[in-house]
Amino acid sequence: MGNFFRDNDDLRFYFERWFDWDPIVRLTEVDYAMEGGFASLEEAREFYGDIVEMVGEFAADAIAPKWEQIERQHIELKDGEVVFPPVLSGIFDELASLGVHGLCVPRELGGMNAPLLVYMTNAEMFARADVGVMTHISFHCGIAMAMLVYSAKEGTTKIDAESRAFISTRFEEPIREIVEGRAWGSMDITEPDAGSDMAALRTRAVQDADGNWRITGQKIFITSGNAKYHIVIARSEPGDLGLDGLSLFLVKLYDEAPDGTKTWHGTISRVEEKLGHKSSPTCAIDFEDTPAHLLGRRGEGFRGMLLLMNNARIGVAFEAIGIAEAAYRLAKDYAVQRRSMGKTIDRHEMIAEALREMRTDIQALRAVTMHATYYEELAQKTSIALELGYTSDPDRVAQMTRDLKRYKWEARRVTPLIKYFGGEKAVEIARRGVQIHGGVGYTKDYQAEKLLRDAMVLPIYEGTSQIQSLMAMKDTLMGIIADPAGFAKRLAKTQWRALSAKDPLERRAANVELTALKAQSWLLSRTAAAKVGSVARRPPSDWAGELKKEWDPKRDFSLAMLHAERLTRLLFDAAACELLWGQSARFPERREVLERWLERAEPRSRAMYDELTTTGAALLAELERAEA
Amino acid sequence: MGNFFRDNDDLRFYFERWFDWDPIVRLTEVDYAMEGGFASLEEAREFYGDIVEMVGEFAADAIAPKWEQIERQHIELKDGEVVFPPVLSGIFDELASLGVHGLCVPRELGGMNAPLLVYMTNAEMFARADVGVMTHISFHCGIAMAMLVYSAKEGTTKIDAESRAFISTRFEEPIREIVEGRAWGSMDITEPDAGSDMAALRTRAVQDADGNWRITGQKIFITSGNAKYHIVIARSEPGDLGLDGLSLFLVKLYDEAPDGTKTWHGTISRVEEKLGHKSSPTCAIDFEDTPAHLLGRRGEGFRGMLLLMNNARIGVAFEAIGIAEAAYRLAKDYAVQRRSMGKTIDRHEMIAEALREMRTDIQALRAVTMHATYYEELAQKTSIALELGYTSDPDRVAQMTRDLKRYKWEARRVTPLIKYFGGEKAVEIARRGVQIHGGVGYTKDYQAEKLLRDAMVLPIYEGTSQIQSLMAMKDTLMGIIADPAGFAKRLAKTQWRALSAKDPLERRAANVELTALKAQSWLLSRTAAAKVGSVARRPPSDWAGELKKEWDPKRDFSLAMLHAERLTRLLFDAAACELLWGQSARFPERREVLERWLERAEPRSRAMYDELTTTGAALLAELERAEA
Repeated sequence: MGNFFRDNDDLRFYFERWFDWDPIVRLTEVDYAMEGGFASLEEAREFYGDIVEMVGEFAADAIAPKWEQIERQHIELKDGEVVFPPVLSGIFDELASLGVHGLCVPRELGGMNAPLLVYMTNAEMFARADVGVMTHISFHCGIAMAMLVYSAKEGTTKIDAESRAFISTRFEEPIREIVEGRAWGSMDITEPDAGSDMAALRTRAVQDADGNWRITGQKIFITSGNAKYHIVIARSEPGDLGLDGLSLFLVKLYDEAPDGTKTWHGTISRVEEKLGHKSSPTCAIDFEDTPAHLLGRRGEGFRGMLLLMNNARIGVAFEAIGIAEAAYRLAKDYAVQRRSMGKTIDRHEMIAEALREMRTDIQALRAVTMHATYYEELAQKTSIALELGYTSDPDRVAQMTRDLKRYKWEARRVTPLIKYFGGEKAVEIARRGVQIHGGVGYTKDYQAEKLLRDAMVLPIYEGTSQIQSLMAMKDTLMGIIADPAGFAKRLAKTQWRALSAKDPLERRAANVELTALKAQSWLLSRTAAAKVGSVARRPPSDWAGELKKEWDPKRDFSLAMLHAERLTRLLFDAAACELLWGQSARFPERREVLERWLERAEPRSRAMYDELTTTGAALLAELERAEA
Repeated sequence: MGNFFRDNDDLRFYFERWFDWDPIVRLTEVDYAMEGGFASLEEAREFYGDIVEMVGEFAADAIAPKWEQIERQHIELKDGEVVFPPVLSGIFDELASLGVHGLCVPRELGGMNAPLLVYMTNAEMFARADVGVMTHISFHCGIAMAMLVYSAKEGTTKIDAESRAFISTRFEEPIREIVEGRAWGSMDITEPDAGSDMAALRTRAVQDADGNWRITGQKIFITSGNAKYHIVIARSEPGDLGLDGLSLFLVKLYDEAPDGTKTWHGTISRVEEKLGHKSSPTCAIDFEDTPAHLLGRRGEGFRGMLLLMNNARIGVAFEAIGIAEAAYRLAKDYAVQRRSMGKTIDRHEMIAEALREMRTDIQALRAVTMHATYYEELAQKTSIALELGYTSDPDRVAQMTRDLKRYKWEARRVTPLIKYFGGEKAVEIARRGVQIHGGVGYTKDYQAEKLLRDAMVLPIYEGTSQIQSLMAMKDTLMGIIADPAGFAKRLAKTQWRALSAKDPLERRAANVELTALKAQSWLLSRTAAAKVGSVARRPPSDWAGELKKEWDPKRDFSLAMLHAERLTRLLFDAAACELLWGQSARFPERREVLERWLERAEPRSRAMYDELTTTGAALLAELERAEA
């Protein structure tokens, strides 16, 4: 009997000791005043603990051991329908009966009303067992919750102002179907000629005289595209409005008669044959005059989709942790029993170092990912609470509004970092896992190569590593431009900590943070210098005005775009230092984690800074010549 | 009509302009005096040119386009025999009829008597088309040549002392069979409990009263294990002699009657199901009292095998170049046509940089690999020429003996570097190829993911990356210990070049070389310090004696073993700088290649030096505690 929660001290640290659960549970359980809800923080936490223990056991015993069957039994497209092999139907049926599909859904709709933190903790454990299974089930809770959020935002979900009890929502039927495991959900974005570049999306939505919408176009790479309920982004506005011409729609791909007969409103034209993720159907869907329901306001589809994307990106970071955890443990288990040159190979210097770094990277990734999740949840729930009018106390509303801004910024700052670092590290760690296994790692007898294949899509989907880097870079640099004084202050403070903090670990952590800040400063001064020669020599407080003049981010940021990945690595290294130092300050046993992290992060951040400040001129000159 | 030779300027540079062919051809064609051989260098080169043009066309047109069939049609084990699917039998039959299996074999035995340089140039092109096909055909020429070499060394190959014409060899029959494509060859080393650690090999060879040898044991991961002729390493000496108890044997796995009926002397018990290399059968072979023929002397099996291993490691570097070249071109072709955000993605800064680095790394790898091949061929041919008594002129013999030492050292110095860098870069470049493709790269519709799967074994087989690093590190540091004065001179000279060379490119290249030398010096002084505290503070010329006292490489080298990969990267970066600078000095158009290389090698070597000199203490302390 395994248990992926019990056997993981680092994961349990967050769940049992680190999180300040109160603000989260207060928002989730509406100040512990909900009818049928938990009366106290302790009661809620006990319940959450039971859930993760149960899922930890299920993942370890009922999914993980089936990896070989999952690999060998294939999902197929038969007569236009996606057919799951027995091993997967079995797993999904059991999961439905455990109730995990309604994990975060309000109790009034049949769910468990659990926090996102619980959901994501489960996600890590599912991913450690089989990432395709995790991806597939993620879309359940995810899409059901998204419907609820869109409905709240458009004002079609009602709660009782007094008791704050749920009254009704526009999407009750699909949500209930999903919660009960009778239907799946999916999010349809990508098209053949539009991946990262969503302004190029061409699927059209047209409204008839009666106000009904119909969608026509092809969506590809749809995870769980076999779903009944599809949230589809399509071009609803005439003319060339780019991202502003997009709206979100809910599309029912089929209707099902009581006898099970299906009437199709769109066509599953293809199930991709992929390198990995064999347990998750990736489909191409053709819509032709398919009836659709507008979600939210016209032209706000891109913004609405970002909401879903935030959770999806955090989800990918947990996929990364799960795969990396599985790869690390597999490699470690192999290394402690495989003998070579008179000792087990975990004692060979290079392998010992690889295992140590794998473990450390997972811990750093988990630290930043948990932080992102915590603030994302606070942001989402505070936003909904304000939207639905959970409180009428003007002081509290004002406080919540201020909090919301901070929560959002904190989640936004680290989300592209975890998606970037998670995707990249999952691949690296899985690859090292294969290498540590040697020859047997290259065969299908061990799980090592499966984990690598599963990992390979993480740096691609839900926004490639490069797109994450561009987002992180733009947010960071535009943030400085908007508030140069704040940046100068942060720089000074970090410099001071790096020199004068009492604790040597804090000084070291601050020094890594300082390197990241210096890189930002360097990039901005170069970017500024390229734009207005004189700006760079003036104090940062003067930059804002100058830089905003006739600003063309695409052109003026080319140096920063070139170095976006390097900057993102620096930002991640710094964020992990900041958070692990915060943990060390409160929990002495975390100092050892920070120390291991610093050992790698220190030379790496120096190297990134070096590369960032000394390379790229030749390439940029070449690109400029090509442009001209 | 494609042509993998014609379309590759960098490859052609070596073949058409860089190599000094004369010494190679002189040794191959015995001073242009062989009957039926080439009368001049020009004649020979024209012939070699025809071969590579032919193979370049064949690889491009008759292998590469079949990659999807190769992926889908599987090699199977049926009734104890390996069965090839039609697509592969077709390719191999055509290859046999082209005569490539006898490429390097003497004309007297039905071959073409072409140099190893031609063979390896072909190997790159075959690997670019399909690396499994390349691996499989490599063992033909390779094993036939190995038999000839072993025979020459044991004195069972005779040539006419006067005309230097070939008279007879012990292995004429198997060589002819292989050359004519009627039989395959393989090299059987690995066992379930002995991969990198060959001292742990357990397969036994026992000699009966009549002097006949029989072999019993299991060999696994045998590339082309379906072969008729197996060169097997087995334990022939009693007691626990480790590597000294091993001998080499030639084993016929089966006899074939004229009607095609086979009598088996061993059993193919398994064909591995692998991540990639679908066109190359990887077998487990069980020998039980299988008749065998001793090759060379008893107890010298390990040394004999190293001979084969050298070619195999160079071959893997060419596999790496081929895969990397294919991945780079595929990604580049995709990037120049895929549009996103208003331009083709090859103009997006990060993708442009990735493509540039992929191209540069391939060029650097090819530079060092060609160098290794050139000197390996000179070494092998000089050694055989001396062995067979090609010349009786004592002055020439003395000169050849001196040359041989230099050739051997030069090949030995760079061979682990190319195996290391090639394996690692093939994986990295193939992975970047997938990433540049985005979502489609994760599907089986594009070749990108296949190339990654094929690449993944390169850092594992023929000695893992870690084993290569250990070899490079030990050779390097032991070389300094043996000749500290020589090292001090090299250091001084490089320092001087880094500061005073006229050409700025030479200064930069020398500076990277200097960083590698400083790392060696640092590692050795730390290693020395750990052993004898006082040594480090004394001049290097005193080290030799001190260090050799009670030397335990396993223990005393632990710091160097930990940093062996970092040192190896530094050594490769330095070797590429040295060779590309050598090219630049003679061919101005190569300066641009060196410049691109320096742009990446400079910060990378600084970073490696930084990591090497600042990290690892905690890990080593931990390992020491575990040991105690």
